[in-house]
Amino acid sequence: MGILRDRYRNPEDIKELTMDELYQLSDEIRAFLIESVSKTGGHLAPNLGVVELTVALFNVFDLEKDRIIYDVGHQSYVHKMLTHRLDEFAKLRKYKGLSGFPKRDESRYDAFDTGHSSTSISAGLGYARARDIAGDDYNVISVIGDGALTGGMAFEALNDLGFSKTRMVIVLNDNQMSISRNVGGISTYLSQLRGDNYYEKVKKDIQDTIDRMPMGRTLNTGMMRLKNSVKTMLVPGMLFEDMGLKYLGPVDGHNIKDMSKVLKVARDFNGPVIVHVRTQKGRGYVASEKRPDQFHGIAPFNKQNGEVVSKVKVTYSKVFGEAVTELGRKNGKVCAITAAMPDGTGLSAFKKEFPSRFFDVGIAEQHAATLAAGLAVAGMKPYIGIYSTFLQRAYDQVIHDICIQNLPVVIGIDRAGIVGDDGETHQGILDLSFLSAVPNLTIMAPKSLEELHNMVMWSETFNGPLAIRYPRGGDPAGFEPEALAMFTPGKFEVISEGIDGYIYATGKMVQRAEAVVKGLEGRGLRFGIVNACFIKPVDVEMIRKHSEENKAIVTLEDNMVHGGLGSQVLEAANDMGLPAKVIRFGFRDTFVVQGDPESLYRHYGLDTDSVVRKIAERLCEGDCDE
Amino acid sequence: MGILRDRYRNPEDIKELTMDELYQLSDEIRAFLIESVSKTGGHLAPNLGVVELTVALFNVFDLEKDRIIYDVGHQSYVHKMLTHRLDEFAKLRKYKGLSGFPKRDESRYDAFDTGHSSTSISAGLGYARARDIAGDDYNVISVIGDGALTGGMAFEALNDLGFSKTRMVIVLNDNQMSISRNVGGISTYLSQLRGDNYYEKVKKDIQDTIDRMPMGRTLNTGMMRLKNSVKTMLVPGMLFEDMGLKYLGPVDGHNIKDMSKVLKVARDFNGPVIVHVRTQKGRGYVASEKRPDQFHGIAPFNKQNGEVVSKVKVTYSKVFGEAVTELGRKNGKVCAITAAMPDGTGLSAFKKEFPSRFFDVGIAEQHAATLAAGLAVAGMKPYIGIYSTFLQRAYDQVIHDICIQNLPVVIGIDRAGIVGDDGETHQGILDLSFLSAVPNLTIMAPKSLEELHNMVMWSETFNGPLAIRYPRGGDPAGFEPEALAMFTPGKFEVISEGIDGYIYATGKMVQRAEAVVKGLEGRGLRFGIVNACFIKPVDVEMIRKHSEENKAIVTLEDNMVHGGLGSQVLEAANDMGLPAKVIRFGFRDTFVVQGDPESLYRHYGLDTDSVVRKIAERLCEGDCDE
Repeated sequence: MGILRDRYRNPEDIKELTMDELYQLSDEIRAFLIESVSKTGGHLAPNLGVVELTVALFNVFDLEKDRIIYDVGHQSYVHKMLTHRLDEFAKLRKYKGLSGFPKRDESRYDAFDTGHSSTSISAGLGYARARDIAGDDYNVISVIGDGALTGGMAFEALNDLGFSKTRMVIVLNDNQMSISRNVGGISTYLSQLRGDNYYEKVKKDIQDTIDRMPMGRTLNTGMMRLKNSVKTMLVPGMLFEDMGLKYLGPVDGHNIKDMSKVLKVARDFNGPVIVHVRTQKGRGYVASEKRPDQFHGIAPFNKQNGEVVSKVKVTYSKVFGEAVTELGRKNGKVCAITAAMPDGTGLSAFKKEFPSRFFDVGIAEQHAATLAAGLAVAGMKPYIGIYSTFLQRAYDQVIHDICIQNLPVVIGIDRAGIVGDDGETHQGILDLSFLSAVPNLTIMAPKSLEELHNMVMWSETFNGPLAIRYPRGGDPAGFEPEALAMFTPGKFEVISEGIDGYIYATGKMVQRAEAVVKGLEGRGLRFGIVNACFIKPVDVEMIRKHSEENKAIVTLEDNMVHGGLGSQVLEAANDMGLPAKVIRFGFRDTFVVQGDPESLYRHYGLDTDSVVRKIAERLCEGDCDE
Repeated sequence: MGILRDRYRNPEDIKELTMDELYQLSDEIRAFLIESVSKTGGHLAPNLGVVELTVALFNVFDLEKDRIIYDVGHQSYVHKMLTHRLDEFAKLRKYKGLSGFPKRDESRYDAFDTGHSSTSISAGLGYARARDIAGDDYNVISVIGDGALTGGMAFEALNDLGFSKTRMVIVLNDNQMSISRNVGGISTYLSQLRGDNYYEKVKKDIQDTIDRMPMGRTLNTGMMRLKNSVKTMLVPGMLFEDMGLKYLGPVDGHNIKDMSKVLKVARDFNGPVIVHVRTQKGRGYVASEKRPDQFHGIAPFNKQNGEVVSKVKVTYSKVFGEAVTELGRKNGKVCAITAAMPDGTGLSAFKKEFPSRFFDVGIAEQHAATLAAGLAVAGMKPYIGIYSTFLQRAYDQVIHDICIQNLPVVIGIDRAGIVGDDGETHQGILDLSFLSAVPNLTIMAPKSLEELHNMVMWSETFNGPLAIRYPRGGDPAGFEPEALAMFTPGKFEVISEGIDGYIYATGKMVQRAEAVVKGLEGRGLRFGIVNACFIKPVDVEMIRKHSEENKAIVTLEDNMVHGGLGSQVLEAANDMGLPAKVIRFGFRDTFVVQGDPESLYRHYGLDTDSVVRKIAERLCEGDCDE
């Protein structure tokens, strides 16, 4: 009989279990995780690493009133399993299913929605201060990884917290990894703390020496102060203590007893305290222990051998990384930058071949953008690979450091459009809106893998800030349209001619335009397809021509309608005083939930049928064929 | 005879001067600064603080090849005086005059354009890495204040630098101030370093004690290691050393000789090094020594008594701060947050009355926004006061932490539109574009001071993310229109009726619309004025009505045209299938240079005459009156 299935109901039940039973519970959780995620896919390794930590947190804190905030949040599966959501794991990260991140809408036990890195200390501090203002007494715990600690806003929050001395607990979940292995001075520092008990040894040496010292003459006030200061100085975690936080640890993150002891001390401490917990990412499953990065977020896999079920296809990320590497071979000024995503962005190929021109800066998007600006000012040609949603973190730096100075930095915007399973926090649906308002910036999007390669090659000699936007994944089998090789800013490509109008589609939407054109044919409307390969500047002459010919212009994009391609086209027509028939498709002022792309396109009225129907309604006013 | 005017020509000349002459030069620089800035206004106190530091930098480094990057950049006046720009100070921060910040376009001695805080280490690291890739050997120096060090991206860069061990020099200009007094754990830490020679004393105590220990039995390997580790531990600046940087200092920032010595060591060190320099902000002028915050950025003042020449008028910032304070009195859940700008945002009034509900988080906009989200989730009603241009730093947090969770946070966007003298890096002309694409967010702008007060009072019960946008300064004397007191999202105010059309103006532009309407009257066009008090959502019904009545709709905003009010109006009309005549005025895909607002409106075609002429041209096609 299992504890998880049969004896555990509510968080408080955990306090009735013996230490042996807590370990048994942990084993059951781990087995469930491996079984369940092997079928659905998901963030396996981070959760395998925090099984005992989560059990210890539940053991020490009162989940009915205390608030636990999980940084990033992909390590919240165990928390979800222990808060009434065990049976929902079959629909983990599916359309209308269980979220892979904490969601307040999903459970009252989820304190704060997360998804992006390094927010949990700020959010926790908000809770803690609200508690103090309201005169409440609950505990606030932020669980943050050592990777997330390299994000600047975590430091901003630590700085504020250390100064204000607000009572809260930070659990530093130190597994030496972000998605890939961590970089940075802080990382090195943490290894020392973690290391060979260096501090312990030194502390003991000093204590012994001081104990052995003759009393009397030498034990003057200076000596007393010495004893105190040596004691202070040898507390591990001086860096945190210097910032005004109490440091506890390091403690073994797979030892529930030790963690419970330390967490109780932290809980009862009247000020900010950081508990340094050493965990092993991917713990307890051979395959994920061996390759925790591959099992960070993984597709459904074979539990026996750890192999991913679906076959790998060529992705846009891979093409981007290889094209930048190819450029690196012919041009010694080409550099590449990633914020902790060498694999995700495809740039590990460049890293391997040109380590001295490759910079993984940690989870630090702001720094990544301004570092690129610095490299460019000094004569280099830097390429940043970054996900659309994380580029939001570097918005000011793109404006202030790259674009005001008009520097030749190329930003590869990966995961643009719908990313799918990660949901609201990760969809790449805002980049066209926030970027197209920025002066000096040119924005492109390829319609195919090959066109992305060509855009990167072309970008080498482009002398200004350039963003190239492309989706997650690859192209469907057989989709191999003729790719443009030369580009002129503000020039679209006419793929096919139309009589009633044109679909101006950008990036991945070009594929979808084909189906829309077929659907319109069925309604007696003959449309052509235009590849809007530049979102900024748009092709003003083509817009003029099509408007003057009284063609309808339908824009199709996987971005917010407001501020995206459709807006640009509509505005250009309006500025020319043309009464263009522009019909715009994209997301309309809404965050986009999780799910597979097709379900989401349907959900938001962007599936082929809906698009065809709406165009017909708008153009025909009742006149069209069925 | 003066050195500055008569003997100094080029940076290398400084190396010919004796130490006494360097101090004389410093005195002359200081006198010039006070004289010049008293006439033009500008950032006086930061520059008075770095006179000797800049002279020492020029004394040690080779300005012909080494690159100095000034963080924020308002402390670069001395650098400018010493690099051929002495005579341009009469037009400091004026239209077409000398910039108050480093500008690569202005001089080859300016290495990197700055303006916003905390970018210099990232930019410097870019230079240093480019140097290493190219096999050059110049020095890179980033000069950063202790205030700027609280910005997260500075930490991100330090983390990267400490890990990569790239050779560069960071000069920490520690004056215990941002614009106001600094906050944060780092600030406390620096005070300890700066303090009463605490470390020096402890170090000596330990050394003495160790020296006095009997040799032989006790001096075992443990003891040897003890000696080493104690030595390491007692190096001041452990926090920086922990991160992988060499720390030198603290050194007196007004002692050129000491600084030159330390800077030479730093220059010749083969790795990253931080030089901790203690300076006094506002040094050498009685008034600015007494109130360095008032003399941070100051209008023209009377040199004799330090009093500002122009009379103070009521500003939007002041009204915002007082309204939030008023709310604070009636509602104990109201909190206020600033990122190091208690005075600039007007929130010092709140701070004084409700210190326990006021949070100055340092230069940390990202943290400020997520802290607000945390407070809101825990039941508080937080108000953030922040400048438009700095809100760019918190873009992801506004999206990810405030808006996805749909939290009742109010963002007071100060300095929206043209800010004037600070130029490109500080104009608030993008906020409407980047915010209006964000779901769940409502955006308002008041037409007058009183209306801002009313909006803040109204916001108390508004249950969602809300941004209220208002300009720098106040209203012109006599401008006291009737202010709205109740608001309905998506409802504009018709101020006056029109026959040919309406000017939809937002915020400060409502004042300007009056002159445009008069000008149009002179051309036989009768326009009404609409107060577009909501930028999101816009008033769809009014747009429909005016379109159906075939009125022209002219939008007028101090934001980019793309993505702003005009786009929203145009898009709403288009979505309804209405062939609206929309003519949009705002900034068109350009950064806005420095200058007084009127010069800038003319420069960008937004002065009354240009607006009137363009409307007439578009509407009349030759038919209108002269």
